[in-house]
Amino acid sequence: MSKILVFGHRNPDTDAIASAIGFSYLAKQKFHLNTEAIALGEANEETKYALDFFNVEAPRAITSAKEEGCDTVILTDHNEFQQSILDIEELTIWGVVDHHRVANFETESPLFFRAEPVGSASAIIGRMFQENQIAIPKGIAGMLLSAIISDTLLFKSPTTHSTDKAIAKILAQLAGVDLDVYGLNLLKAGTNLASKSGEELVNLDAKTFPLSGKSVRIAQVNTVDIKEMLCRQNALEEAMKSENKAKGYDDFILMITDILNSDSELMVVGDNVKLVKEAFDVEWESNHAFLKGVVSRKKQVVPKLTESYAR
Amino acid sequence: MSKILVFGHRNPDTDAIASAIGFSYLAKQKFHLNTEAIALGEANEETKYALDFFNVEAPRAITSAKEEGCDTVILTDHNEFQQSILDIEELTIWGVVDHHRVANFETESPLFFRAEPVGSASAIIGRMFQENQIAIPKGIAGMLLSAIISDTLLFKSPTTHSTDKAIAKILAQLAGVDLDVYGLNLLKAGTNLASKSGEELVNLDAKTFPLSGKSVRIAQVNTVDIKEMLCRQNALEEAMKSENKAKGYDDFILMITDILNSDSELMVVGDNVKLVKEAFDVEWESNHAFLKGVVSRKKQVVPKLTESYAR
Repeated sequence: MSKILVFGHRNPDTDAIASAIGFSYLAKQKFHLNTEAIALGEANEETKYALDFFNVEAPRAITSAKEEGCDTVILTDHNEFQQSILDIEELTIWGVVDHHRVANFETESPLFFRAEPVGSASAIIGRMFQENQIAIPKGIAGMLLSAIISDTLLFKSPTTHSTDKAIAKILAQLAGVDLDVYGLNLLKAGTNLASKSGEELVNLDAKTFPLSGKSVRIAQVNTVDIKEMLCRQNALEEAMKSENKAKGYDDFILMITDILNSDSELMVVGDNVKLVKEAFDVEWESNHAFLKGVVSRKKQVVPKLTESYAR
Repeated sequence: MSKILVFGHRNPDTDAIASAIGFSYLAKQKFHLNTEAIALGEANEETKYALDFFNVEAPRAITSAKEEGCDTVILTDHNEFQQSILDIEELTIWGVVDHHRVANFETESPLFFRAEPVGSASAIIGRMFQENQIAIPKGIAGMLLSAIISDTLLFKSPTTHSTDKAIAKILAQLAGVDLDVYGLNLLKAGTNLASKSGEELVNLDAKTFPLSGKSVRIAQVNTVDIKEMLCRQNALEEAMKSENKAKGYDDFILMITDILNSDSELMVVGDNVKLVKEAFDVEWESNHAFLKGVVSRKKQVVPKLTESYAR
């Protein structure tokens, strides 16, 4: 049987990498597949911290399955083709494990597809190990745990599902770490922003949303020191303007999220600054605003903007 | 919480009805949802036999969720929107349980989506009861069992998965029936073809396939008496020609499947009869041909035609 590649989305975060590692192992045990976990890009600093901590090898970064001599793949933490490997439309998709909406996805044949509206794909995989009574190796338990912590911001994000914390507790025990202590250290490892340029910061974790015909780019950075980022406002705004010009976005919004207190600062540049400001019932000062209790782009920012842009 | 409707595909077969009944019950127990199993059409004779046998009420047939005051639904045994309820694009899809390819499907938000390449959606649901250690009531066990028997032609179809027979054995025990005796009686109940007109027969279970730019309709009827159907060849060919003319199909193929011996006779009318005949390495006599061991439209007929039409 030829090799099946298992990978998360492009521009991988900890859940993209951990879910691929976890499901690749599970698929070998449960379905007797010949799998290899790979990645569609380099691991970020948070993910590297987790890989180092649990002594797990980082998956190789590749861009084409055909070049690897593979024609069958498994997608984790994504399903939309534009977030997947470049030659996805030429490949057979054996399966998907995901926690996002289903869209821009199509197969010719029946497949294994498991999606649930929970905090991270790794939480689903953790529960699949349990359902099938397959033992979770320590390193894999640590990586799955890291992904749940990362995606839910240590259970503070409104995307957190009640089952996420339950499986995280079990994984922490298997991985031999204190959930809260390790969790905060992991999140802090991803907040080393000082050494990054404005351009790097606004591209770390950015997604494009079509809102009432406008192309709106929304980036998010996690930090333990919002002030440090506010001091760099000029450089960040320049980087956002350059992105708008180079990529044709109408507006660029930056969420600077305080992972300790679970609040965010918003910055915005573009043609529709007024619509962004009207979306939130807060005071704007020098083109930035403090959003108390806001940490989720998907659940707390995009819906407000969708309404405002539609007015 | 407002009611969530659970239903299988239009033109429902036993798996469409049984999977809706089974998952509606499971969702109440596992997810505490307020569900109702309904159907997108009347039950066929095979399904009615199973409902009567296990004393289960047939789900109501409806065509619009909004008219029922419902805006949230669960799809079983299908996911493609053109096979679903008329107002599907205006509704929130809570979840999907299916065993077909994923296509023509899109949601705005994350959802519960479970698909596996097995013989029937009801087999997945039977295993979900087990995974979650939820007791299966006798009537529901009987309906899920009936759907597995129906979709796999009592495990003779090449669409059968190794897990289908295992779960069917457990369901037969819970339902208090002998798997082989009940199975054959159920399949026979769906083969009462004598009372049906040619038009009814070619529409009982028909699907359209785009093959190299041609629109090819492929119908399948199950029987225990192929000869009876061959005697009606003229009437069947007339009905197939009428369908081609009325609906704009290029070709119409009828599979008459002998469920006792697991063979099929093929009939064809249309512009590309030559391509259909060349697709199979058999002798044609008076415009029909015997295909030894062929019972699956999806796995044994469509692939051969796809190749032949592409030449």
